[in-house]
Amino acid sequence: MTDRPDTPLLDRVNRPADLKNFSDAELVKLSHELRAETISAVSETGGHLGAGLGVVELTVAIHSVFDTPKDKLIWDVSHQCYPHKILTERRDRIRTLRMKDGLSGFTKRSESPYDPFGAAHSSTSISAALGFSVARDLGGNVPEGLGDAIAVIGDGSMSAGMAYEAMNNAGHLKKRMFVILNDNEMSIAPPVGAMSTYLSRLYAEEPFQDFKAAAKGAVSMLPGPFREGAKRAKDMLKGMAVGGTLFEQLGFSYLGPIDGHDLNQLLPVLRTVKARATGPVLIHVITKKGKGYGPAEAARDKGHATAKFNVLTGEQKKAPSNAPSYTRVFADSLIAEAAKDDKICAVTAAMPDGTGLNLFAERYPSRCFDVGIAEQHGVTFSAGLAAGGMKPFCTMYSTFLQRGYDQVVHDVAIQRLPVRFAIDRAGLVGADGATHAGAFDVAFLANLPDFVVMAAADEAELVHMVATAAAYDDGPIAFRFPRGEGAGVTMPERGEPLEIGKGRIIAEGKRVALLSFGTRLSEVEKAAEALRAKGITPTIADARFAKPLDREMILSLAADHEALITIEEGAVGGFGSHVAQLLADEGVFDAGLKYRSMVLPDIFIDQASPADMYAVAGMNAEHIEAKVLDVLGIASIGAQRA
Amino acid sequence: MTDRPDTPLLDRVNRPADLKNFSDAELVKLSHELRAETISAVSETGGHLGAGLGVVELTVAIHSVFDTPKDKLIWDVSHQCYPHKILTERRDRIRTLRMKDGLSGFTKRSESPYDPFGAAHSSTSISAALGFSVARDLGGNVPEGLGDAIAVIGDGSMSAGMAYEAMNNAGHLKKRMFVILNDNEMSIAPPVGAMSTYLSRLYAEEPFQDFKAAAKGAVSMLPGPFREGAKRAKDMLKGMAVGGTLFEQLGFSYLGPIDGHDLNQLLPVLRTVKARATGPVLIHVITKKGKGYGPAEAARDKGHATAKFNVLTGEQKKAPSNAPSYTRVFADSLIAEAAKDDKICAVTAAMPDGTGLNLFAERYPSRCFDVGIAEQHGVTFSAGLAAGGMKPFCTMYSTFLQRGYDQVVHDVAIQRLPVRFAIDRAGLVGADGATHAGAFDVAFLANLPDFVVMAAADEAELVHMVATAAAYDDGPIAFRFPRGEGAGVTMPERGEPLEIGKGRIIAEGKRVALLSFGTRLSEVEKAAEALRAKGITPTIADARFAKPLDREMILSLAADHEALITIEEGAVGGFGSHVAQLLADEGVFDAGLKYRSMVLPDIFIDQASPADMYAVAGMNAEHIEAKVLDVLGIASIGAQRA
Repeated sequence: MTDRPDTPLLDRVNRPADLKNFSDAELVKLSHELRAETISAVSETGGHLGAGLGVVELTVAIHSVFDTPKDKLIWDVSHQCYPHKILTERRDRIRTLRMKDGLSGFTKRSESPYDPFGAAHSSTSISAALGFSVARDLGGNVPEGLGDAIAVIGDGSMSAGMAYEAMNNAGHLKKRMFVILNDNEMSIAPPVGAMSTYLSRLYAEEPFQDFKAAAKGAVSMLPGPFREGAKRAKDMLKGMAVGGTLFEQLGFSYLGPIDGHDLNQLLPVLRTVKARATGPVLIHVITKKGKGYGPAEAARDKGHATAKFNVLTGEQKKAPSNAPSYTRVFADSLIAEAAKDDKICAVTAAMPDGTGLNLFAERYPSRCFDVGIAEQHGVTFSAGLAAGGMKPFCTMYSTFLQRGYDQVVHDVAIQRLPVRFAIDRAGLVGADGATHAGAFDVAFLANLPDFVVMAAADEAELVHMVATAAAYDDGPIAFRFPRGEGAGVTMPERGEPLEIGKGRIIAEGKRVALLSFGTRLSEVEKAAEALRAKGITPTIADARFAKPLDREMILSLAADHEALITIEEGAVGGFGSHVAQLLADEGVFDAGLKYRSMVLPDIFIDQASPADMYAVAGMNAEHIEAKVLDVLGIASIGAQRA
Repeated sequence: MTDRPDTPLLDRVNRPADLKNFSDAELVKLSHELRAETISAVSETGGHLGAGLGVVELTVAIHSVFDTPKDKLIWDVSHQCYPHKILTERRDRIRTLRMKDGLSGFTKRSESPYDPFGAAHSSTSISAALGFSVARDLGGNVPEGLGDAIAVIGDGSMSAGMAYEAMNNAGHLKKRMFVILNDNEMSIAPPVGAMSTYLSRLYAEEPFQDFKAAAKGAVSMLPGPFREGAKRAKDMLKGMAVGGTLFEQLGFSYLGPIDGHDLNQLLPVLRTVKARATGPVLIHVITKKGKGYGPAEAARDKGHATAKFNVLTGEQKKAPSNAPSYTRVFADSLIAEAAKDDKICAVTAAMPDGTGLNLFAERYPSRCFDVGIAEQHGVTFSAGLAAGGMKPFCTMYSTFLQRGYDQVVHDVAIQRLPVRFAIDRAGLVGADGATHAGAFDVAFLANLPDFVVMAAADEAELVHMVATAAAYDDGPIAFRFPRGEGAGVTMPERGEPLEIGKGRIIAEGKRVALLSFGTRLSEVEKAAEALRAKGITPTIADARFAKPLDREMILSLAADHEALITIEEGAVGGFGSHVAQLLADEGVFDAGLKYRSMVLPDIFIDQASPADMYAVAGMNAEHIEAKVLDVLGIASIGAQRA
């Protein structure tokens, strides 16, 4: 417990409505307190810091002007929501952020009526806001009522096609709604893409200084739907002077750019649009990620995500790690392969750091492509690269690859193009919770014809799978690996391509065969050790491939054992389902086989430590052991039943 | 066989390179012949007519100016590719379009080197073109060489976020590449969205007449990367006069609009950009869908897709149908539900006619939303509507829903919002081939927690499933149904909500249980009839639900029969896999069960008649019968083994 900041005004806020009693000057002071409280809380919990600090004033302004929860405030991605949570009846729990049974690090409908639409992936907010706006006009009923919808979306999120689709539709439907473009020129990584350049130009052409004066009298200056009024109001409407901003071309009224840390600008502008808007309005706000906290402002990532830290020094408290992260092993392996083969290139969708491709980009800048938050394009761009004779590694988190699923099917699989999918964050991810859990990739990839699907059992295997993908040129190939540190195994000198569709036997045993796909192998081995102490020696196998299956090995495991149990960190429909299909096709079940498939449970698992999540999922050694004892009809002692 | 048109010039074209020998005047004549040949061919085969007729001159212009297949011509969606196929060594097979073993109705890499990137879903072409452009600059090797990449994309396809993502990335990378925006103000349905309005405005502001004169001397007027030069050249560069088109704001040079049916405009412009461009260029071309064929021009859909027809009259030759289409049954049922419940609304992504929502829109215009080709937005917009208390039916083809998969997971499933997914074209679709086959939806939906997933066994069941979805408000629910006509069963007066997670027994029998999910039920019944003639009386059940499964019914079927066979029109990982998981969990396999799961085979099935496709898939009555005989160990006579 660190010293808490002094927050006399914030202490008077129980809910956003309380802000209505504050003067504008008090709201400025409250913002300082809210910033201090946010820093203090995150220093205890860790989490996303920079984004929240960037929107402190915006959060105060929106909640003081609009009427939440009747008005629907939708935070895009929503890792910037901590100040919002403090103001919306959750201050008492803010120091449980991202912990098991604590507050989510994102907005969440089930957590609060002030979170009308949860998020964690980017660029969904405008679509949701349009949905609320249309529902309001059609007479939709919800307990809190339906007022205005306000989407707050970062410039990075604007690079996603989904945001454009929503703007295009909103501009067409012409419903009253608000999009606040929070332009910090830095979503997670520094920005890429023409849109980012465009926004910078808008900003450069209209510095705050001129606007600041104009904003003071904004109420009187913004009549009607912004189409008439004083000269200075026209100056604010960027588009009218230069023939239309991109946003106006899409049917929005455009207002800005304004200083998102200056309540003297934010408050009058928001009051005005609330009073006057009749159609969709985009308010372009410039903020600084990490604003007001030196260590965050100074950091390269602007304090994007942090461990617990010392408030005074900014020093982060991180547990020392014994093994390299899978992400790092992947990056190093890819760099090693690229050194041997100049056709290897890499694609990331705005996650160069998270995927380790920042390291690849340092070494091979001309062969690394950050396409922005644009998974659909990223996948098909990779397909185009492959069709042009390159060897692209399309590197995405499992859940984000869902954004490009049709492109995986239509552009890669059907054309059998050799795109290599490096799938990070496969399986449970801990504090980021259900929205980031990579549970479905094996199911949605392994049923695509001609796809090769691998999972690394440990970091050494990952090295070989990168080499396998580099060497394989006959069609699409994917390999998945989890978040976090490796198992600490001995690392190979270099990656060696694996034989496609061949698994490996780790240990020969009797009665029961444990067939693992992916990194649960270490838990399988622990379970086997415990079982050996009870007189049961399981056979252990690492499938390596969900597709093509190692038919020979699997049928032999089935034939030679009383029981066969598959284990994977994925939902039903994946590896185990393919094994079951094989066993059924081959008539293995006809005469009886104690077959079980351990998969992630049929629930979305809330944030917790990875260990806690595996316990909830029933995916630990003790669960595997219990499953074996149960299947063999031996009483289980002291183990939870899955 | 109708009379073939007279085509003296076209007869001299064996490959695009032959066009280099033609004068501009001859190219104009050639275009007329190419149009006549296209009409003649489609009159014999049926298929997409209007789109091809709209790009006849563009096709001739591109192939005469660029050097295909070294230059990569990428047709977006590619249903406009018939004239292209005629010019690219496939004229001899053009009258086999969309037939089994004939030419695909789309571009296809495996069919011709002139099809460098296949398509059928929209908006992928710019991503692919950028991939080729980058590959060229990185030294990628392909047999035909790597020259320029040219994407031809319709204005409708421009409403998709993916196109925007690609433009954003291309504008950033600044590679030389060409995007030809084929603006016919009509992709499949009349256009929607702000982008469409914007394009119309661009066109209105710069009529052809002014440009036509300018274009004549275009070569001399477009120096450098279009940033200097004569006054008239500046006039062509729309953006420079009005402060930047949307395309220029995204980093493209913009050129247009020009008349896409006038080779005197197209040829000089394409020659100029080929000679001078250094970065990405967008050429805005205005065309008419159905151009040059009266019946197509006069049709509401501009001859989008047609059956075989009489060239002189345009009259289509359609087989009389006995049963209503599933699409029609869905639309009628939804209208009936909407009459009782004013919260019901519907969302389509640019397919109002294909999904039947045009009928719903006629009746309830304020409750029907065509969001454009924007499945990502469409799904989350639906989620927003549901969060706002409405009952949205998000209506999409199975394969197009893949475009919104992450939104299904992240915005609908995780938030447990009651969005109703009406999934049309589930299963095999015939002439449109593999790109349109809805094979994966059950697998990618049924493993999402809290999702309800149904499949209609016939058109009467579909009526009840629409009612079920309307009544169910506890979370997401999906129901799938195929393309084509229903089974001709008696229709119910009204839809009655089904009990969630309950299947039904169709016929009681012995030894073998056939558990069907979806419309293969009619084939199951045929197979059962044949089996009864052989002394085997199978039990027949309709699962109705893949999730939640009817555990009780399934376990009872397993317990009471020697064999259990599931049948579904979907890939592995779906219904059968969930059944297998249940049986394994419950230990049903321990003592032996002849379990088989009939799923779509692990191949992408090329276009053919539906009957031929089912034969390839092994999904007909004879295959089911053979499977039963095989499982029961009875010799099969005259039936194909699956």
